[in-house]
Amino acid sequence: MKLYGYWRSSASWRVRIGLGLKGLEVEHHSVHLVRDGGEQHGTDHLKRNPMRQVPVLELDDGRQLTQSLAILAYLDAQHPEPPLLPSDPYLRGRAWALTEVVNSGIQPLQNLATLQHLTRLGVDRMAWGRHHIHQGLLNLQTMATDTAGRFLVGDDVSLADIALIPQLYNARRFEVPLDALDLLLQIEARCETLEAFQAAHAHQQPDATL
Amino acid sequence: MKLYGYWRSSASWRVRIGLGLKGLEVEHHSVHLVRDGGEQHGTDHLKRNPMRQVPVLELDDGRQLTQSLAILAYLDAQHPEPPLLPSDPYLRGRAWALTEVVNSGIQPLQNLATLQHLTRLGVDRMAWGRHHIHQGLLNLQTMATDTAGRFLVGDDVSLADIALIPQLYNARRFEVPLDALDLLLQIEARCETLEAFQAAHAHQQPDATL
Repeated sequence: MKLYGYWRSSASWRVRIGLGLKGLEVEHHSVHLVRDGGEQHGTDHLKRNPMRQVPVLELDDGRQLTQSLAILAYLDAQHPEPPLLPSDPYLRGRAWALTEVVNSGIQPLQNLATLQHLTRLGVDRMAWGRHHIHQGLLNLQTMATDTAGRFLVGDDVSLADIALIPQLYNARRFEVPLDALDLLLQIEARCETLEAFQAAHAHQQPDATL
Repeated sequence: MKLYGYWRSSASWRVRIGLGLKGLEVEHHSVHLVRDGGEQHGTDHLKRNPMRQVPVLELDDGRQLTQSLAILAYLDAQHPEPPLLPSDPYLRGRAWALTEVVNSGIQPLQNLATLQHLTRLGVDRMAWGRHHIHQGLLNLQTMATDTAGRFLVGDDVSLADIALIPQLYNARRFEVPLDALDLLLQIEARCETLEAFQAAHAHQQPDATL
């Protein structure tokens, strides 16, 4: 398989974690979201994804999938071990909900395209991003209080933790105050001990420019 | 089960469609998102959902689930017939991806909280909403071209269609030009022949104020 991604894209990062947890090797292709006006707007990438976003997973037969959660759900079905969601149906729903708090509740409000649009309208993108990430993470922590164990839902890593880690990285980029987010930071520290999370980190990618 | 929702909330609407397709009856409770500054900010609702959003599904044992896609995935697992996703893993991934184009790619940029924030910053919320809905639906249609049959993925209703219908309603509220969206409108017309979609429509809800 091939993964078209970008080092600092949180959605690409999620898929990299999932692949690592499953022990799956893929060929990584970088789509540079900033250089030359953004390679995601080029004709090659538009054929892969009309949304002009990464990641895109290309299967061995050439078929392609977009949207990080759709890709992760696909990988989880095809390669069930270790599972990315709890087996209990209710806890599975809770894990999905926490994942969506990040995926639809925070990330879209602070992704590159939204910020670029806000800047064109004269809005302070840093203040906007900081506000939405801070509120979203506070809510996420409240929602996780009664399911959290070593990770956001119980004692096993789930999709929710996969969504959390890149979002915390973005929180720091936006200078979000993290002092009230103890539970999330404890879980982050546990994730950081796992090889799949270490290898997937933005700064470990070949296309990272720091 | 109880569903806490609001007539015009597109996320509540999605869950109503899913319940209808599964033939499940629930007790509906309205959380008025506009009246008196918004009941979603009240202490009763904050206990249900710190995100201050609807829907919330309360199970018979009192446990609660938030986030429309998490709720629908839960219902689909507990009540498998008719399925809300294709059985083929690749097509399942495609259906999830189309669903997420609406759920994380369009809806969060035009939901009530985002629009209220934009208005406070002096941004024209109608123009903002129109732009993001229009671009998102054009992309959704392009992405659906090679999977669509009678519905967005093949000939059976899926989560993707459930996400589409309330988003098209919002498109009209924002006066989005729909003339290039033939495929989506044809699928909408097919959905509108189904009882579950008819009964779930915003205007059919007891709390609707038109």
